[in-house]
Amino acid sequence: MHQVSLSAIPGLPDIQPGDDLAKIIGDVLETHGVQDGDILCIAHKIVSKSEGDVIKLADVTPSEEAQDYAQQLNKDPAKVEVVLQQSNRVVRAFKRPAQNEGTMICEHRLGFISANAAVDESNSDEGTVITLPKDPDASARRLGHALEERFGLRIGIVITDTFGRPWRLGQVNVAIGLHRVPAKTSDIGGTDAWGRDLSVTEPALSDELAAASGLVIAKAAKTPLVLCRGVNWTTDEETTARKILRASSEDMFR
Amino acid sequence: MHQVSLSAIPGLPDIQPGDDLAKIIGDVLETHGVQDGDILCIAHKIVSKSEGDVIKLADVTPSEEAQDYAQQLNKDPAKVEVVLQQSNRVVRAFKRPAQNEGTMICEHRLGFISANAAVDESNSDEGTVITLPKDPDASARRLGHALEERFGLRIGIVITDTFGRPWRLGQVNVAIGLHRVPAKTSDIGGTDAWGRDLSVTEPALSDELAAASGLVIAKAAKTPLVLCRGVNWTTDEETTARKILRASSEDMFR
Repeated sequence: MHQVSLSAIPGLPDIQPGDDLAKIIGDVLETHGVQDGDILCIAHKIVSKSEGDVIKLADVTPSEEAQDYAQQLNKDPAKVEVVLQQSNRVVRAFKRPAQNEGTMICEHRLGFISANAAVDESNSDEGTVITLPKDPDASARRLGHALEERFGLRIGIVITDTFGRPWRLGQVNVAIGLHRVPAKTSDIGGTDAWGRDLSVTEPALSDELAAASGLVIAKAAKTPLVLCRGVNWTTDEETTARKILRASSEDMFR
Repeated sequence: MHQVSLSAIPGLPDIQPGDDLAKIIGDVLETHGVQDGDILCIAHKIVSKSEGDVIKLADVTPSEEAQDYAQQLNKDPAKVEVVLQQSNRVVRAFKRPAQNEGTMICEHRLGFISANAAVDESNSDEGTVITLPKDPDASARRLGHALEERFGLRIGIVITDTFGRPWRLGQVNVAIGLHRVPAKTSDIGGTDAWGRDLSVTEPALSDELAAASGLVIAKAAKTPLVLCRGVNWTTDEETTARKILRASSEDMFR
């Protein structure tokens, strides 16, 4: 019987800019136990914090464009400026009557499409916002290599963020940075149990893991680290989370 | 430490129209073991099959609209007719040069937006397609009540389908029918570990569970049944998967 376990790893301290996150995660993993083939899902906020991707809004000078959006959407101009600086472009901007503050759906400069370019006010100190890490795949690789060296094991890393979706309410975690774990797997060319071609089945393994980690992450309880054990997976040395992005030219919804 | 386990439940026979699915699932659960608060993720195909939602394409007469789409997209007119009959409307239809067969993104009459109105050729006999159950929430409740009565336990049910997504490649499972499990939970009004308001965090619990089940479902190995144990969840007696659907009027992407 195939079984996967998801464990919230306790004991992480508050992460501060400059912290050696690989060392800190390694220490809690040593207490918890880690095995070959384990995959760590890490909420990006602790990665962003350790890498200093925290912006003081008082230091931000809103552009004219930011001020226009801020007025239209009833948002803080400095926050809007950060959102615009993080974005290639604004895909949609709207404020419904029921909303106090409007929403900007943006294409982040890394290619991800999400609300407010993934700029996050929660889990940060008052007056500051947290952005995505500058290169989440590089962050994942760096963490992964350090942990693999320390423990002498193959360890997958999925750095996650919490995204809304078109058409469906609520949020799920998705992958934004990867080490070894393939962005998606492929059943192309295989056959299902009834012998039919599985011509277009490509399970988004990295996003399945990210979403699953949400089952044990409790935002209110500071558990940004989830260990997934028992997953059937094959190393992809060339993996990046960007590989899961649909090419703009093949996308019917932007 | 919070831990969740996901187990693929083996031993299910091929499901045929008219089969008593609750009895069949109950039998494999009895062998496997089931506990109070367990949640079952069930791939909809076995529900559809047991309820007879299997259509012989030879029995379908394509309308003129179906024939037009079929020609434009290089699709089987009978399959297109089934897709149209399942749909409220076609949101996008396109065939890229690299595609042999085009894609129709449809709003299913149940409200879900997905490729080809969730009409599925895989896991069905040649010359047939499988549609969604007519009322997946009712199917989930029926299965759930039968299993709860048999075992004297609270058991959640998430009926799943495999959907593609805008902007991101690959597929993840999502919830299309629910018993007791809330479509989404809500951290609204709570505070995070740093004391900030979690004003808009609504984890899509049902979709997290569905996506997680994909980690142990192997299409090629006939494991459409996944048991999730250890999830923190509160019963929602009024739950439906339709509650996760964004109102058309609040959707910027259709």
